Parts: sequence; C-alpha cells; structure tokens
Amino acid sequence: MRDVAIIGVGMTKFGELWEQSIRDLFAEAAIKAMDDAGVKKIDSFYVGAMSSGLYTYQEHLSSLMADYMGQIGVPGLHVESACASGGSAVRSAFIEVASGMSDIVLAGGVEKMWDVEDGTIVLATASDQEYEAYNGVTFPGLYAMMARVYMEKYGLTREELAQVPIKNHKHSVNNPNAQYPFEISLNDVLRSSMVADPLRLMDCSPITDGAAALILCPLDRAKEFTDKPVRIRGVGAATGPIALHDHKDLTRLEAVKLAADRAYKMAGLSPADISFVEVHDCFSIAEIIVAEELGFFEYGTAGKAIAEGQGTYGGKIVINPSGGLKAKGHPVGATGAAQVIEAYYQLSGKAGARQVPDAKFGMTQNMGGSGGSCIVHILEAL
Amino acid sequence: MRDVAIIGVGMTKFGELWEQSIRDLFAEAAIKAMDDAGVKKIDSFYVGAMSSGLYTYQEHLSSLMADYMGQIGVPGLHVESACASGGSAVRSAFIEVASGMSDIVLAGGVEKMWDVEDGTIVLATASDQEYEAYNGVTFPGLYAMMARVYMEKYGLTREELAQVPIKNHKHSVNNPNAQYPFEISLNDVLRSSMVADPLRLMDCSPITDGAAALILCPLDRAKEFTDKPVRIRGVGAATGPIALHDHKDLTRLEAVKLAADRAYKMAGLSPADISFVEVHDCFSIAEIIVAEELGFFEYGTAGKAIAEGQGTYGGKIVINPSGGLKAKGHPVGATGAAQVIEAYYQLSGKAGARQVPDAKFGMTQNMGGSGGSCIVHILEAL
Repeated sequence: MRDVAIIGVGMTKFGELWEQSIRDLFAEAAIKAMDDAGVKKIDSFYVGAMSSGLYTYQEHLSSLMADYMGQIGVPGLHVESACASGGSAVRSAFIEVASGMSDIVLAGGVEKMWDVEDGTIVLATASDQEYEAYNGVTFPGLYAMMARVYMEKYGLTREELAQVPIKNHKHSVNNPNAQYPFEISLNDVLRSSMVADPLRLMDCSPITDGAAALILCPLDRAKEFTDKPVRIRGVGAATGPIALHDHKDLTRLEAVKLAADRAYKMAGLSPADISFVEVHDCFSIAEIIVAEELGFFEYGTAGKAIAEGQGTYGGKIVINPSGGLKAKGHPVGATGAAQVIEAYYQLSGKAGARQVPDAKFGMTQNMGGSGGSCIVHILEAL
Repeated sequence: MRDVAIIGVGMTKFGELWEQSIRDLFAEAAIKAMDDAGVKKIDSFYVGAMSSGLYTYQEHLSSLMADYMGQIGVPGLHVESACASGGSAVRSAFIEVASGMSDIVLAGGVEKMWDVEDGTIVLATASDQEYEAYNGVTFPGLYAMMARVYMEKYGLTREELAQVPIKNHKHSVNNPNAQYPFEISLNDVLRSSMVADPLRLMDCSPITDGAAALILCPLDRAKEFTDKPVRIRGVGAATGPIALHDHKDLTRLEAVKLAADRAYKMAGLSPADISFVEVHDCFSIAEIIVAEELGFFEYGTAGKAIAEGQGTYGGKIVINPSGGLKAKGHPVGATGAAQVIEAYYQLSGKAGARQVPDAKFGMTQNMGGSGGSCIVHILEAL
C-alpha cells in the first residue's frame, strides 16, 4: 500500500444556509479544496451523506456532484455510515489512493438538514428502525440513557457533564466556520430546555447545513502541490451493534475502541503520541465515553478530567479545538470530513488563534448511531 | 495492485418478498455467500442500496448488516450510486482487496421496494430533483424520450424494440431466482399498458425485493477456497450528467462508454473477447443503447441486431442470460451485484440450463439514473 497525504481542503460555513441547496454546498467545498491543492482535475471522488433521500429527496450524489463541481466523467461514489459518513468518505479515498488505482482523489461530505421539519426523525433512521425508532426512541433518548447509566456508575455530576459543551463553545470562538461561535456558561447549560433527561438543549449538537472536502494524493507526490502536506498515518474502522440494547455496557462504545486500536496499530503509535483529537460529541456524554475508548483517560474518569481542564489547551490533550459538533455544528454527512480538515489545519500550522502548539500527531473520531459504526484517523505533520 | 478473484456468491429469490425485511434479505444473501466460499469471518464488507431511507426508513446499513450477518466489529460501508449501487459495492470491495488493506471482503447489495406505494417516486430521487423530479418527470418518462429519439433517428420499429424483453423473458425461464420466469409474446408486449409512450409495461423492469452478495479475495489465495474462482480482470466507473437534458445526444449514454473503455483498458481486452454481458435493461431502450456503448454493435444497429437474434445463444453475444432486470427483477441496490453473480455462475460453469458455452470472458454493466453513473466489470474464467 502507498502512503497517502492530504494536500488541500475546503469547507463551507456551517449553519442555517437557506440560500444553498445540497449541490451548492458540496460544490463550494469541493471547488475550494481543489483550488487549495491547486488541482483542476481529480481522478475520483467520494461524497459522504447520511440521508440525502429523506432530507432533500435527492439520491445519486455521485452524478449530481460530478456535474456541479465540473468533473463529469470522473468516477464518484456516495458513501453512508450515518453520522460517520464523512469519515467513511475519507477512509474510502485513502484506500483508493493507497491501492494505486488513482492519484488525486477528493473526499468530502455534505448534509442539507434545515429544509425539513423532522430532522430528528430522519436522524433516527441511523438507529434500529424496527426495534428502536418505530418504538419512539430518538438519539437524544438513546444518549440520555447512556448518560444516566454513566452518571450512576461513576458519580459524574450534572455540573461536570456541562463542562463538555462549555469547553467546546469556548474553542469555537476562534473558528470562523462555526455555527455557534460564542461562549456559554454553566447557567446557560443547566437552564436550557430539557430534551431527554439528563440531557438539555446545550448538551445536544444542532441541526446544520454544510459541506467539507479534502484532496488526497500519494505521499511521494504531495510536495508537487503544497509545502505543508499532512500524512494520513493510520485509519481504523469498525462496526458495533445497531441497537443500544445490544451493547453489553451502556457506558461503552466498543466500535470506537476497535477502530482506534486498528488506527493506532497501522500508525505504530499510542495515545500518548497524540496532541489533539476531534471527537464526535453529538451529545455531551459521547465526548466523555469516546475520550476513554480512545485511550486518553481511564474508564469512568474522562468526565471529571475534562471538567478539571484536561481536555483543553494546557491540559492532557486538546479535545475538539474546532468547537466540536456542539458548537461548530453537525451537518451529519460532512462532520467526519470537517474533523479531518481541522486536523489538517492544526498539523499544517494554519489553525490561527486555536492552534495547538507543537502538535506532531492528531486524531479524528467520527461515529454513527449509538456507536454502531466508527472511523478513526491518525494524522501526522510533515 | 493485487489481482482479485471471486470465491463465493449468494443471493435471495427476487420478487415480492413480503415476509422478509431489508436486514433479512441482505443477511440471507451474505450468509449464503460466506457458506459458498467456506469463510466464517470476513475482513470488511460493502452493501449497496439506493434509498433504504425512503424505502424502509433505515439508514446506517453498515451497522445493521454487520449485526444481522453475525459480523459485528468488522468494518462495513453502505455505498449508493442509484441503480448502480450494487456494482459500486463490488468495485469498492475490489479496490480494498487490490490495495492490500483486506483479504476477505464481502460485496453485495439489497433493496426492499415493495413496502412503499410510491416506488417510482423514490426512484426519481436518482434523477435531478430540482430540474427533473420536481417538474414531474420520472424514469419511465426519461427513457421514453430516449426511445422516441432513437426510433426517429435510426428507424427502429416498435415491434423490434419489443424483442428485447421477449428475449430476456425467454432467458429467465432457466433462472430459479427470477421474479418473472416466463416467456412473453409480441402481443403481450404490444398490448400491455402504456406507461410512457412508446414504453409499455412490458418494456419496464419491475419493482423488486432482493439481495445479492459475493466474497472477494486476493487471486493468489483463491484456490484455498474454491476450485473455480473467477477473476475480476477489469473495473471501470464513470459519471455522466445527472439530468437527461444535459446529454449532448439522447441516443447516447456516455458514462457507459467511458466506464467500459476503462474496464477494457484495465483488462487488456476488447469487445470481441467477451462471450456474454449482463446489461442494465431497466427499460427496453436501455439495453439497445448500452449494447452499442459497450462496443458490441455499431451505433444505431443494436435494436435490429437483437431483434434478429444477435443478442442470444448462437448470436454475436449473449445479452442478459440471467433474464436481465426486466425478467429477473430489479431490486435496485442489489442489481449490480446480482449481475456479477450471473457472470460468476457462467464463468465457473454453474449456470445450468442457461450456460453460455465456452465463455472465457464475461462483462457486467450497471448504471444509475439516465446514465448519470456507470460501473462495468470484466470477469475471467480461470
């Protein structure tokens, strides 16, 4: 397998983008990425999207996007793994470049979520439709159950849990693409509407329109395009049970650990080597459990550690320097690609006011459902 | 890149399968394929499906299918390219095995279409939603326009056009998995309901439930699993315009030619080497245009040639020995994988009463929309 690097990135603003359709969003991100890498023609591309059918009544994104990004003829493929669709697109592009099949491959993701009223119902199609969704459980409810069990088992307090979104909103202030780039207080979290006990509105990532795209090429060609390529050093993917009731332990996300172990093994690295991580904080509790599964904290300790400042600048590891899904926004198909873009910014020294100092290795963790699938990437500064 | 072979296949009956859900269907095909190859554990898998969200309100097929086929933990990915989703799954699995990333990879597809009343509306999400679907055009209408222009330009008669489904139904009689395994007469076609002039009901592939799956591995390991592996010798993919009105010529499907040219180039073969082809006959006219784009007939001549018997046993090339989409059925996400299964049966000598004699090379052609995407595979008997 060939080594693979990222040579350019592009993304839209994340938010309520009423003036842009799904094709507009992806084409904007894709063309920005091509411009950034200085390529006019790609060999192939992958577009992640969770449910363009239900959100926009548009499938066949390969053809649509090839057309609107000016690349008709080029092979393209829409990949879906619920909220891990964007990360899956990056992994697929990595494999295609690594295989030798193609050199210049675009990987991205998009979701146009604001055009429907039932966004949460569409998201529920990532759960077990027959045994969860049809019985009325949506994702806030599933993650609320995980939060409740975790708090009971490990003594995490409601106030400690609130420190996750507070930290992520603080980071987002320095991210010009963030949907909600402002700080929030403890009171803001604790007084926000109850969504699914114990999760309140400020524990939940928002509905977001947006797109993100990257250009990958063989590592040995990367310097033709940029002085600051970023190597994809490890990739890990895994599935877990579709239904939360099939998890052996509601405080665990075993697909995350499996995917991380595979990425660490491919990269030849361990958690101690990683300076920052973009994690899938779809709900506050998710960031805590994920930080443990990735090996950064012992089981049962990440919540308190993050509340004590171990998940931000100056702490053990910077978690979600971009603002995370909560504050940057969560256009589900784009999220995983946007995480890798944040890692690219950090590792090429382009992260501006949110730059993590001296970062050599960064990680991204993107998951679907209640841990039914996970994609982990380990990125390296060159 | 490593050479890749198919070592086992499995599929469900195609038809109205009221007793089986989408997970049941894919699991049945996948487990049959694993049993056929003699593998208990796979390294990775791809599941093609066009619109499981709109058809069944179920996304996140990677997690669902890993779960129900007994492979939790294994990386999986749902890929979508409209009606070319199944072919795309095979191509993705091919790339993953060729890359060296994984050895035993399952590729398949599934669609559960009978549970909704608006199947044609769901299918229309593969067209240009803003400029075609929202203005009322569905796929029968799009292909009817192609048929009308072709008939005007080349003098193809309504009776000659009817010979395509007549031939395919004749082939299907020998396919135990076919949805409609019976012969039809010229009168049957010409007296069937008008759908979109000049296309009648018997020109249109049906709504179908079904699934198909294959196991791929590196060619140099294939004999560990079977005496009769089939090599994937060439793979070609391409996109075309999403909207029919952007085609330069309504009698052409340029993505098909591009994909075929790429597959021929990879395989080092030409049309004269191919003994049979499974083509995407979603409507009668499609088979005719595709047969020309693949290089088997000159432009404007395939309709008359097929009507004269050049597309069946004893003719120039056997087109759709399985019965094709028209008679075998067209569960859109599974179709491309089922085509490769037919090629596997033919090239491993397991096609029974529909065996094409002395076939060394076979081809499959799977497309999405009105030619917006296409996947071509060239398979080789070993």
